[in-house]
Amino acid sequence: MLIIDCHGHYTTAPDAHQKFRDQQLAKLKDPLAPTPTTARISDDEIRETIEKNQLKLQKQRGADVTIFSPRASTMAHHVGDEAVSQQWTRACNDLIKRVVDLYPENFVGVCQLPQSPGVPISHSVQELERCVQDLGFIGCNLNPDPSGGHWTAPPLTDRHWYPFYEKMVELDVPAMIHVSASCNPNFHATGAHYINADTTAFMQFIEGNLFKDFPTLRFIIPHGGGAVPYHWGRYRGLADMLKRPPLAQHVMKNVFFDTCVYHQPGIDLLVKVIDIDNILFGSEMVGAVRGIDPETGNYFDDTKRYIDALSISDSDKRRIFEGNARRVFPRLDEILKSRGL
Amino acid sequence: MLIIDCHGHYTTAPDAHQKFRDQQLAKLKDPLAPTPTTARISDDEIRETIEKNQLKLQKQRGADVTIFSPRASTMAHHVGDEAVSQQWTRACNDLIKRVVDLYPENFVGVCQLPQSPGVPISHSVQELERCVQDLGFIGCNLNPDPSGGHWTAPPLTDRHWYPFYEKMVELDVPAMIHVSASCNPNFHATGAHYINADTTAFMQFIEGNLFKDFPTLRFIIPHGGGAVPYHWGRYRGLADMLKRPPLAQHVMKNVFFDTCVYHQPGIDLLVKVIDIDNILFGSEMVGAVRGIDPETGNYFDDTKRYIDALSISDSDKRRIFEGNARRVFPRLDEILKSRGL
Repeated sequence: MLIIDCHGHYTTAPDAHQKFRDQQLAKLKDPLAPTPTTARISDDEIRETIEKNQLKLQKQRGADVTIFSPRASTMAHHVGDEAVSQQWTRACNDLIKRVVDLYPENFVGVCQLPQSPGVPISHSVQELERCVQDLGFIGCNLNPDPSGGHWTAPPLTDRHWYPFYEKMVELDVPAMIHVSASCNPNFHATGAHYINADTTAFMQFIEGNLFKDFPTLRFIIPHGGGAVPYHWGRYRGLADMLKRPPLAQHVMKNVFFDTCVYHQPGIDLLVKVIDIDNILFGSEMVGAVRGIDPETGNYFDDTKRYIDALSISDSDKRRIFEGNARRVFPRLDEILKSRGL
Repeated sequence: MLIIDCHGHYTTAPDAHQKFRDQQLAKLKDPLAPTPTTARISDDEIRETIEKNQLKLQKQRGADVTIFSPRASTMAHHVGDEAVSQQWTRACNDLIKRVVDLYPENFVGVCQLPQSPGVPISHSVQELERCVQDLGFIGCNLNPDPSGGHWTAPPLTDRHWYPFYEKMVELDVPAMIHVSASCNPNFHATGAHYINADTTAFMQFIEGNLFKDFPTLRFIIPHGGGAVPYHWGRYRGLADMLKRPPLAQHVMKNVFFDTCVYHQPGIDLLVKVIDIDNILFGSEMVGAVRGIDPETGNYFDDTKRYIDALSISDSDKRRIFEGNARRVFPRLDEILKSRGL
């Protein structure tokens, strides 16, 4: 059985990458500042950041492949304008491609999108195509709130998003719904904004009828689906009140949750109420919560332990660890098959 | 053992009450429209709406007392201006007082506040005093987002809110943190905005140090604490990363969750990870989700059944059903004691 971690970010990118971003931001403030030039980063620098972090943890914790994307909190689509977002996004995605090329057995790429508040999502189609067709990426992270906590974009079920969904369907790639940093002081990024976005997206899917228009569109809602599994009765009841079909038909043929839930009781609940076919192993590491749980002595984000501890069949575990990811990311399945896996 | 439901709303108020509101809104649109006059509602009309709904369900489901407040979704602090909010709030609270006077054994009052976007919270102090001191109410519902889904107010830990907290402490009343309707199309009220607000408030309390300044301030976070219990590992880990004391000391001496979680696995998780002393029985009825769960044949919001089904001691159940509510609402305890309960 392969262990596929569907949710990893390059949170440890070399300093030069952040310096490029700093130059970008400086230029935003002062048009006379030097034009930023893409960071020169050696392969060794990348190896250093990966081998001491994601690759080390992958081996220690027993994962085989990580679906790897740029750091989510620094996508920061709310900063600057479309040109800034385009330039930064390209740099972030190119860096992921280099990691994948250095460690093709350990990482596959998922791209950031050059979203920007008020800019049509169709402007992100080209970067998706480049990443999937030219760089071999297998999916993307779609930000439902490019404003960074002000929620000024239309809901994900609005036709605003359709041009992008059409391309996703054409390329047969899923999107993880993932917000970035929050510039609204009400919302802590990883403690509120992320979880709220997950919950919000799910409820939008209940209210709308998106998957009637796009029966093959697929989304991963990270962080264990936000509040949804804990409130599964509420969502089943709301679907009923809104005269929608049962969630299994209306939403859950197209929506999947990862296992970024950092304690055993949470994972137990997830697996109890959500169909196994809708759960993809993920850790979000090196990510949101880096410490050791004093109650267990293990890292909070060592989510494989929680799955291992479940009293479910081996075939169910295989679906969570491998099968579901290969089904949701057909381009990953192709890559693995080409290697005889 | 008394069964105290800490979370009930007057969602079934007589039509005349809504007509008054409609007049208010009409006047907002057209200053030449007639000045709204407070609705004339007979005792019989109130009896009809209560006896066919909240009181009937209270008896059917075996609760004794409901902590009763105006309908949350129609507080709508984002509509109109401060004067509109003051007038509407007063009418809503006066109606609760009439219910309590008609059924003093079954209901105790909690008030809505005349919040309005951009208006200092000190302007809500007078209504709190009126409701507690003149009308005998025992608490209030505090809206952390009077903008209705745009989140333009400062976080609950900001000094902006302090004048109100000072009065809460002086009167020894807790607040339930409860948003109202959402005018942001991203957020379904009961499916996203409510749950997000719960999660957001909890994370604000972790980030801040509010309870150092107000050691006796008490909040109920409804809907089972939003996403918090499901992500309890994340919150324990974030507190650690932010160098805060453990949650038991930093937040959980002052924050309580209700049991408005509409399925057994959710309640099981809540009771497993959250200290029994922090859990108050609540149903939110007649409320967010009105239907029958096809999986159980029971109403989703008949939350007493889920508590009854828990394998915890009778003394723990007594804390959830009665003891914690009497501790968090000392004025309720006084009322009950005065009746020999």
